[in-house]
Amino acid sequence: MSTCYLKLQLFFLYFFCKIAFCFGQINDPLPSWNEGLSKQAITQFINDTTTPGSKDYIPLKDRIAVFDQDGTLWVEQPIYTQFLFAIDTIKDLASKNPEWKNTEPYRTILEGDLEKIKNFNFQDLEKIIAMSHANMSVEEFQENVCSWLNKAVHPRFKKPFTQLIYQPMIEVINYFNNHGYKVYIVSGGGQEFIRTYSEQVYGIPPEEIIGSAGKVKYEYKMGKPELLKLPEVLFIDDKTGKPEAINLFIGKVPVAAFGNSDGDQQMLEWSQSTKRKSFQLLVHHDDPIREYKYDKDSKIGTFSQALMNEANQRGWIIVSMKNDWNKIFSFENCLPQ
Amino acid sequence: MSTCYLKLQLFFLYFFCKIAFCFGQINDPLPSWNEGLSKQAITQFINDTTTPGSKDYIPLKDRIAVFDQDGTLWVEQPIYTQFLFAIDTIKDLASKNPEWKNTEPYRTILEGDLEKIKNFNFQDLEKIIAMSHANMSVEEFQENVCSWLNKAVHPRFKKPFTQLIYQPMIEVINYFNNHGYKVYIVSGGGQEFIRTYSEQVYGIPPEEIIGSAGKVKYEYKMGKPELLKLPEVLFIDDKTGKPEAINLFIGKVPVAAFGNSDGDQQMLEWSQSTKRKSFQLLVHHDDPIREYKYDKDSKIGTFSQALMNEANQRGWIIVSMKNDWNKIFSFENCLPQ
Repeated sequence: MSTCYLKLQLFFLYFFCKIAFCFGQINDPLPSWNEGLSKQAITQFINDTTTPGSKDYIPLKDRIAVFDQDGTLWVEQPIYTQFLFAIDTIKDLASKNPEWKNTEPYRTILEGDLEKIKNFNFQDLEKIIAMSHANMSVEEFQENVCSWLNKAVHPRFKKPFTQLIYQPMIEVINYFNNHGYKVYIVSGGGQEFIRTYSEQVYGIPPEEIIGSAGKVKYEYKMGKPELLKLPEVLFIDDKTGKPEAINLFIGKVPVAAFGNSDGDQQMLEWSQSTKRKSFQLLVHHDDPIREYKYDKDSKIGTFSQALMNEANQRGWIIVSMKNDWNKIFSFENCLPQ
Repeated sequence: MSTCYLKLQLFFLYFFCKIAFCFGQINDPLPSWNEGLSKQAITQFINDTTTPGSKDYIPLKDRIAVFDQDGTLWVEQPIYTQFLFAIDTIKDLASKNPEWKNTEPYRTILEGDLEKIKNFNFQDLEKIIAMSHANMSVEEFQENVCSWLNKAVHPRFKKPFTQLIYQPMIEVINYFNNHGYKVYIVSGGGQEFIRTYSEQVYGIPPEEIIGSAGKVKYEYKMGKPELLKLPEVLFIDDKTGKPEAINLFIGKVPVAAFGNSDGDQQMLEWSQSTKRKSFQLLVHHDDPIREYKYDKDSKIGTFSQALMNEANQRGWIIVSMKNDWNKIFSFENCLPQ
């Protein structure tokens, strides 16, 4: 055998391996996830429930997955994005309401003290919601949100909020979607707020967004029907409100549930009450360098010791952002490796 | 040319025509509809909105059609099916509540006076709902409904209620579905009630059923989570409540709406407020032989003169059950032609 022929063979072998490796990467549905137990559990669940003939196979109509939003799909620190929208709206309206300088809760907002804002009680929040989220049509409200999202940037990352989406979770959403799962967002945040960007940002249409909801009133404006947003709460989609709203909107028990805080506890329990195989996952914020580090002592996205204990006891997956995710945001592409 | 050859030619011609005719029937998506303006309007709308390149083309994500249920998809006379379920449930519970013989509204129910029952006020209805629809888990309630539907028959037709479905409307649902429309039921009836049979009867899954809803409470029974139905109304999905609930559940304006009574007026108006081409249809009950004849003077399914005027003014299609439908129920197959 000539040396030349051997070289040619080695070249083809090298070339073949390289192609195989690349294909492996391309075919990985979760490239932002490091290899490990969390990633393995996700792919195992999808294989078990969508491979025809598998003992845990779930028919298409029952493939329902629910995702919390704040802290699970996008950044919720230093304070919920929707709060920042409300704060900016109140600030915009302040020039027409000079008395706010001396009236709570507006004064605290105008001073921009986030720590005090986090401690607002229900009455304070009601006043803020009434000013920033009500007494306008649903359409007007969504235009306001849209226009704010187009100009607002996150105080630390200096990026639009709709870019502060966790790339690994987008991959999970797509992975589930591509395997016939209907994916819902089930958020304590306002449903009209999320619906303004959900389709563009997550690929999830408005009818698959469940969130806290205010009452609306059908009325006519210049002969044309419109829905007026009232300053009254219809339901709060948090804690026990999550399974209650899931039942209201979906009428089925989801088989997969993703969250990150005490507000998601009952939603995860509910999904585990199905007779089918099910999957529960909690994102743990433990990466202060690339994102934030917080759990039991945070007012925003509290992840208590009790939740941690329950998760361990019930076999829920706890994702370490630091160790399980090789990338957090899609814009990290542009950063040096 | 021999006679034999000519005969053969005629035979093939006849055979060809027969096949062509049969194919025409098979390919007709609305075989229970007589040819006429109503049928033409439906097929025209589907062609206009789903043919690529058409000026009125509607992208898949915005193809939303909403259907009222009682009187639009199934029989609502002599009284709503769900009322009959409640009446039978109260009768079943009467032996354990002997005092009901002398207490309203139970006495009227036990006497079975439908005319008086139709005049019940909101307080009466609340008591009946509390007894027949609450203080049990969602699962238990649906088992009760299922078991009742399996044995109950309609007083006039002597058929199970789930057979008293309008075949022409099932064809419309399938026709819209097959053209990429997501079909929702938007009913004044109870959403948990409809969800027990909607998938089997209409092919519409629970998450596409919007109806009046009671509050539920997440709790634990022997350590297992369950949702308890409370005797409190969350919202009534009728009249202005229909567009309000459509916004809550779907977050988009439907482009097609089907109803039969004053309770559907705002839903049809709302669908017509879209900037896209849209379609509105009202079923008019004018066939006392095959079904019922009622409109403005009926307490159940009132179709007022005002609604008739608005429909004419706004160009909504009014379907005459007598003239537009060659078949009302699928079991008419078995009747002599």
